[in-house]
Amino acid sequence: MSDQNPVFIPGPTNIPDRLRMAMSMQTKDHRAPDFVETFAPVLEDTKRVFGTAEGEIILFPGSGTGGWEAAITNTLSPGDAVLIARYGMFSHKWIDMCERHGLDVRVVECPWGEGAPAERFGEILADDTAGEIKAVLVTHNETATGVMSDISLVRKAMDGANHDALLLVDCVSSLACVPFEMDAWGVDIAVSGSQKGFMLQTGMAILGVSQKALNTMEGAKLPRTYFDFRDMRKAYVGGGYPYTPPVQLIQGLRTSLDMLFEEGLGAVYDRHVRLAEGVRRAASAWGLSLCAARPELYSQTVSAIYVPSGFDSNALTEHAYRAYGVSFGVGLGEMNGKAFRIGHLGMLTDVMVLSGLATIEMAMADLGYPIELGSGVAAAQEHYRASRANALRSAA
Amino acid sequence: MSDQNPVFIPGPTNIPDRLRMAMSMQTKDHRAPDFVETFAPVLEDTKRVFGTAEGEIILFPGSGTGGWEAAITNTLSPGDAVLIARYGMFSHKWIDMCERHGLDVRVVECPWGEGAPAERFGEILADDTAGEIKAVLVTHNETATGVMSDISLVRKAMDGANHDALLLVDCVSSLACVPFEMDAWGVDIAVSGSQKGFMLQTGMAILGVSQKALNTMEGAKLPRTYFDFRDMRKAYVGGGYPYTPPVQLIQGLRTSLDMLFEEGLGAVYDRHVRLAEGVRRAASAWGLSLCAARPELYSQTVSAIYVPSGFDSNALTEHAYRAYGVSFGVGLGEMNGKAFRIGHLGMLTDVMVLSGLATIEMAMADLGYPIELGSGVAAAQEHYRASRANALRSAA
Amino acid sequence: MSDQNPVFIPGPTNIPDRLRMAMSMQTKDHRAPDFVETFAPVLEDTKRVFGTAEGEIILFPGSGTGGWEAAITNTLSPGDAVLIARYGMFSHKWIDMCERHGLDVRVVECPWGEGAPAERFGEILADDTAGEIKAVLVTHNETATGVMSDISLVRKAMDGANHDALLLVDCVSSLACVPFEMDAWGVDIAVSGSQKGFMLQTGMAILGVSQKALNTMEGAKLPRTYFDFRDMRKAYVGGGYPYTPPVQLIQGLRTSLDMLFEEGLGAVYDRHVRLAEGVRRAASAWGLSLCAARPELYSQTVSAIYVPSGFDSNALTEHAYRAYGVSFGVGLGEMNGKAFRIGHLGMLTDVMVLSGLATIEMAMADLGYPIELGSGVAAAQEHYRASRANALRSAA
Amino acid sequence: MSDQNPVFIPGPTNIPDRLRMAMSMQTKDHRAPDFVETFAPVLEDTKRVFGTAEGEIILFPGSGTGGWEAAITNTLSPGDAVLIARYGMFSHKWIDMCERHGLDVRVVECPWGEGAPAERFGEILADDTAGEIKAVLVTHNETATGVMSDISLVRKAMDGANHDALLLVDCVSSLACVPFEMDAWGVDIAVSGSQKGFMLQTGMAILGVSQKALNTMEGAKLPRTYFDFRDMRKAYVGGGYPYTPPVQLIQGLRTSLDMLFEEGLGAVYDRHVRLAEGVRRAASAWGLSLCAARPELYSQTVSAIYVPSGFDSNALTEHAYRAYGVSFGVGLGEMNGKAFRIGHLGMLTDVMVLSGLATIEMAMADLGYPIELGSGVAAAQEHYRASRANALRSAA
Repeated sequence: MSDQNPVFIPGPTNIPDRLRMAMSMQTKDHRAPDFVETFAPVLEDTKRVFGTAEGEIILFPGSGTGGWEAAITNTLSPGDAVLIARYGMFSHKWIDMCERHGLDVRVVECPWGEGAPAERFGEILADDTAGEIKAVLVTHNETATGVMSDISLVRKAMDGANHDALLLVDCVSSLACVPFEMDAWGVDIAVSGSQKGFMLQTGMAILGVSQKALNTMEGAKLPRTYFDFRDMRKAYVGGGYPYTPPVQLIQGLRTSLDMLFEEGLGAVYDRHVRLAEGVRRAASAWGLSLCAARPELYSQTVSAIYVPSGFDSNALTEHAYRAYGVSFGVGLGEMNGKAFRIGHLGMLTDVMVLSGLATIEMAMADLGYPIELGSGVAAAQEHYRASRANALRSAA
Repeated sequence: MSDQNPVFIPGPTNIPDRLRMAMSMQTKDHRAPDFVETFAPVLEDTKRVFGTAEGEIILFPGSGTGGWEAAITNTLSPGDAVLIARYGMFSHKWIDMCERHGLDVRVVECPWGEGAPAERFGEILADDTAGEIKAVLVTHNETATGVMSDISLVRKAMDGANHDALLLVDCVSSLACVPFEMDAWGVDIAVSGSQKGFMLQTGMAILGVSQKALNTMEGAKLPRTYFDFRDMRKAYVGGGYPYTPPVQLIQGLRTSLDMLFEEGLGAVYDRHVRLAEGVRRAASAWGLSLCAARPELYSQTVSAIYVPSGFDSNALTEHAYRAYGVSFGVGLGEMNGKAFRIGHLGMLTDVMVLSGLATIEMAMADLGYPIELGSGVAAAQEHYRASRANALRSAA
Repeated sequence: MSDQNPVFIPGPTNIPDRLRMAMSMQTKDHRAPDFVETFAPVLEDTKRVFGTAEGEIILFPGSGTGGWEAAITNTLSPGDAVLIARYGMFSHKWIDMCERHGLDVRVVECPWGEGAPAERFGEILADDTAGEIKAVLVTHNETATGVMSDISLVRKAMDGANHDALLLVDCVSSLACVPFEMDAWGVDIAVSGSQKGFMLQTGMAILGVSQKALNTMEGAKLPRTYFDFRDMRKAYVGGGYPYTPPVQLIQGLRTSLDMLFEEGLGAVYDRHVRLAEGVRRAASAWGLSLCAARPELYSQTVSAIYVPSGFDSNALTEHAYRAYGVSFGVGLGEMNGKAFRIGHLGMLTDVMVLSGLATIEMAMADLGYPIELGSGVAAAQEHYRASRANALRSAA
Repeated sequence: MSDQNPVFIPGPTNIPDRLRMAMSMQTKDHRAPDFVETFAPVLEDTKRVFGTAEGEIILFPGSGTGGWEAAITNTLSPGDAVLIARYGMFSHKWIDMCERHGLDVRVVECPWGEGAPAERFGEILADDTAGEIKAVLVTHNETATGVMSDISLVRKAMDGANHDALLLVDCVSSLACVPFEMDAWGVDIAVSGSQKGFMLQTGMAILGVSQKALNTMEGAKLPRTYFDFRDMRKAYVGGGYPYTPPVQLIQGLRTSLDMLFEEGLGAVYDRHVRLAEGVRRAASAWGLSLCAARPELYSQTVSAIYVPSGFDSNALTEHAYRAYGVSFGVGLGEMNGKAFRIGHLGMLTDVMVLSGLATIEMAMADLGYPIELGSGVAAAQEHYRASRANALRSAA
């Protein structure tokens, strides 16, 4: 099986050669002056991607899940109440983590396909006159359903309720792909990772942390050492790290930032919208529906697409892999068997996306789906052609 | 511009990671035992790809053009007559080289789109009762027109004329993609290169040389040193090289052979036919014609496709590159402006080919070609689906 | 500054090309069959390095520190007593982590330069008739002082006291460099990492876990999610992972195991002893003392060497880096300013070690140390020459 | 056998990671605008290294031997007289090539260890009143003996004789290591290669060509096509290439030039002198003599060192390779068995050189040479320490 086809999973994303080479750096001493000189500007420049001037960046060797754990253990104490909605696999998993850490988790159940229920949050927070709720947790981009929530609405609801809970946001699969405005949205901790919009290997949780969050840090009683912000911040002052840092990933992040800034963050965001829209038009041409309930919830990084009734989406993704050597996202949780997912994030081109659409069309045809070969491709082509001029302009 | 899209030029081909890594080897001493132990089996195993048990393999740092020069200078003397047909850019260039080396070049002019005129060769050779013609030169795969000639027919014509000229064949863009039977076809020198079917960087001419050719070597009076077979063969005996060998390319060839044999040469050849047929069906769906005159001349490694009258193929390939970041082959020589070319050789997948077809469709639509978006893709998809089962079987 | 010189820090170690290439793998879908087929044998083969047939292997994206946290949170509950000795920076840090997680940490203070006080442990455990002590924690190789403790003696002491506490061992900087016998020594959790003996990038904690440890898992009340063995084991059953796995590091571990087994674990261990002994002879030739108190405590992976009184070891390591571009380990904790360290672990050759010795000699001479240029090199050369034949034999 | 040790052959040289990555570029279309934009500045910037403003740069896929052939075939005709001295293996091979191309080769035989006999050349040229001698051929750095000739003296002799022969110089193993002044020295063709001072893989002959040489080009009757300057120059005008160019090596040359200019050519030259002098002091400490007859002939890129009488240098280099995994240059031609060679060119550090010296010391001791372990290392250390401050200054 050739390994030359792109992947269309919603991350880890296809790694550009320049980043593979950056991460292929030979061992360097993390206590040597070179590392110090590299590390501080990486932290500083990462802020731009988070949209923060006030906040700080903290990097943990680990996955996004580790980032979640860092977010809650550094700000909360056993028994603290947190408010969170369940509308997909990743919000579900964060809820589970909170429960296992002994938090009082107040869950708003939403249909999968919906996003963060800002209004309902507002009501609950308004009712919480005792201030029991210490944090609101939101999954920005719910990868399981292809739903992107509007964080500014959550902030508005919190402000409307005059509630000073922290706002913790999982932006693992959205950061560096779509605009993120940590300061403007009043996000206290934003949790991302290396393997999505930053286009790197899995292995680093990347967090933006507000001063407000840092102020709660000392009082937070959930035990942590590995993920303790305090050790990190203390070490960062001297350009160091509390334990062995993943120097290759940090070098990769340096180059990733260079690439993002060279293309221009605005151009990167526009590219994601452009590619995503092509995928959605393809789905529409196939007569298939997205899991996301409404256009304003459409994710620009992943589309979860229902298969027609009577078909098994797992058979489809497995067939696409075995027959054509292409990976698509399986349906997760409630969507298992019912939907497949096309990841369209990271350093992707329209040409690559078209190959994914052509592949899944073949796989669907092979399994007897009532779709016309080439129809989704043509719909996406039409969009990519039309939008190309704009994309070229914004890249210039 | 992302560098993640495949190229669709008729070589150099897309290099699989495994080969990029093999060629990225750190410097090794070419006089050390390691090199000796690597080199001899590489020569031996390469024979299999040429279809020769009797012949020898000789490797020059250089391009295929250097291979041509080696082929003529090691077998011919100034004033010797050679027989060759002009039916494309590469046969044209070989003719030019022969003339510049002072040979008596007897050219059969053929329309571009035709292949080697075996019958006409037979007549000419039959007439050459004085035995003036010392060699017949044939371009196996004429990359400019996408025409593949049947070498066995040339051999048959030579035998029919009872003529003992040498048969020198340029198989640069066909070897390791389609069957090549040096011994069975009585080929005396077959000239290939690293950057096509072997999927490596440009930089090594790879020659198969028959015992008959070696027997003429001492008498050949064309001056040569760099390309002298004699120095090579003398050095090979001790596992050495007459000058500094390209050890990284030789290591790459080792791994390339491993990959070809792991997939199976038969499966590799079948894959090329399968991918090529998809491209041809796409062209047909677009209503466009191939430069190759007849189906039996269709190349399995590159298709040259006429643009409709009134269009400029150079504008098309340039637009595809600038707008979508994808390289296609321009029309060469007589075909310049009239045809574009899709290379479909080397380690390519159907998924990759579909992305190329989707791209050129967009580019054609952008420039007002009367084609329907998705039509070529659909035709290729249909073929790839249908042929997939067979391909999987032969790969197993 | 050229990046071609080796590093002589006690990890991360110099990465062989073969492993850099393995870790440079393009993104693969961790939910695809390929990953499943790779992952299970990696886990299985890693057991051999830990010396366990009974235990299981668990891999976390993270550093060795994360491995420590996993070890205690999966086996202990708040208030549980643990027995541990402080004799260097890494034992000190583990103690700190235990305290921050609310354990009742019973510390045996030892002079730095000493190893695990097996006898004293035995006495304490014998006195613990109430069975309060739930775990004994031991740093196998104390990197700060270059001291390697004999784990079998600790086991003997525990057995002598008839105590059934768990035995948790940090073997981050020793595993895959020296023999480790998890089953024979009755180790319940052995914590290692990717960036030392496995010669990979930093980023993966590698744990061996006994059945006895797994039996305590459900009862352990320290909160954890990211580092929870239960999620890992549940996912492993289906060839999966509870969150995004670091596929490149896992591929790297696959190749690392291949390299270790190809050289032979015995040969790898012998090579470490051989290289270490050369370094010690160099130190002796310089008239300098090791921090390790006695020969039986000498580490085979790192030597901590006292600088003469009146000199500052930090100035030495900084000078070596700035003047010659070579990284050595600084003195940590109590040793800061008093000792420098030479890491001699991972895929190192005698030739590389000699370059390190030659470099530090120059740096010492530059700073006025009373040492003779070439003296340490000569002492090591003598040893490497004499031991070469043996090494070649064991490699054969 | 680990592949981590440097090589100490006089080229190909140890390749820095940055260049390995540059050469590991995925296939790019050499007919696309990108290549054009890369290629012209590479040609322009390479002139600086040759010390020419008037001349042109021509790049052939091939080795330095191919460069020699290009130099003579583009400027000379059969029967032309050329003047050349034999004082080592590479001058010998160039003589052989000239003879095989039918030139009237007038050889001045010199003892190996001597350099170009400028005075004798002057006399011969003065006697050549008929102007039969069309070119003087000089090997700048005779790699077999470690002798570097002063090209300016040859120019002076030619001018003194008022002779207008071309001056063709082989600077394969000196260019980009020591100053080369093509214009100032009146060199008409300077032949170099990718694999020495440019630190790249073998595979590209790099030539500087004067306008005077270009003026003789049309009249030159030696047959050539592959190596014809005319095709190259014609193609270069449009940013193209007459056949498939080695795009990875050209990208590598781009990065090599960047590295040379970043370090500063002056600093690069100083570094070579500094490293070479350390090797010579080591040889002196061992009581061994250089092949080079006098200090003013010492090569800054390779030292050929006589072994004591009664010893076989081939046994020494073979033992160093087999026992310690380090490659040194064997004695070539007359020096075979009598001398070994240490290459000290390219991106080498003093630390790396010391490892080579330490290794050969061990190998010599193993074979019973009367040398003291560490003695050569100490002599080189002393020099590297003393010269370090200067080197740092010039690097700043």
